[in-house]
Amino acid sequence: MRSSGFHANAPTRGQVLSAACPSRRLLGDITSKWGVLVLIALSRGPSRWSELLRAVGGISEKMLAQTLRTLEEDGLVLREARPVVPPHVVYSLTGEGWQVTGLLVPLVEWVQDHVGADDAAERNG
Amino acid sequence: MRSSGFHANAPTRGQVLSAACPSRRLLGDITSKWGVLVLIALSRGPSRWSELLRAVGGISEKMLAQTLRTLEEDGLVLREARPVVPPHVVYSLTGEGWQVTGLLVPLVEWVQDHVGADDAAERNG
Repeated sequence: MRSSGFHANAPTRGQVLSAACPSRRLLGDITSKWGVLVLIALSRGPSRWSELLRAVGGISEKMLAQTLRTLEEDGLVLREARPVVPPHVVYSLTGEGWQVTGLLVPLVEWVQDHVGADDAAERNG
Repeated sequence: MRSSGFHANAPTRGQVLSAACPSRRLLGDITSKWGVLVLIALSRGPSRWSELLRAVGGISEKMLAQTLRTLEEDGLVLREARPVVPPHVVYSLTGEGWQVTGLLVPLVEWVQDHVGADDAAERNG
């Protein structure tokens, strides 16, 4: 986390508040419901398709395919076909993928720590 | 940013990958397209409705109202009717709102720094 002065500087540095700024699309890809969760799942390590499908609760095959394709196009995820028998595909974070996931993890942790105390039982379920 | 060891710990600590976890709803509110941008805009300081509408490029009145209501319900934004003449309403971040925005800002900065160099001209526009 940055020093207490960052709030004043940050929003003026970039153009994300401008509707025309291309950073909005990338931000949207990363912070989309499934984008966040697939990145978090991949931060556990390289994963096969079926492992991701199991890891990210509730994701459909269609949404997993679409999310992985988008993150791959953004240069955050690497799709690698391994020449083994039987052949299989492994997805992993690129260097930039690790960078952005490193910034997402504290946010996700904060959220998990701040869901209402009333939800605690449900959280543990 | 955390030490390099956090990736291994973080995903197992919480339940966000579980479809039933209530943290998903809060995460979704914060990382929704307009949620992120309204929080970033409020990190500039307390704002009136019309100021937010101008600050967040492309947001409609309906989406601004809905986003502010959601963030208020989540305890991240404070809505304050100021007893002045003429009366007006001011929106600001709560303590928890500042905490979460402090975690969003580095993510947004990263995104702004990583949109393709080809987009640089557009970004400055």
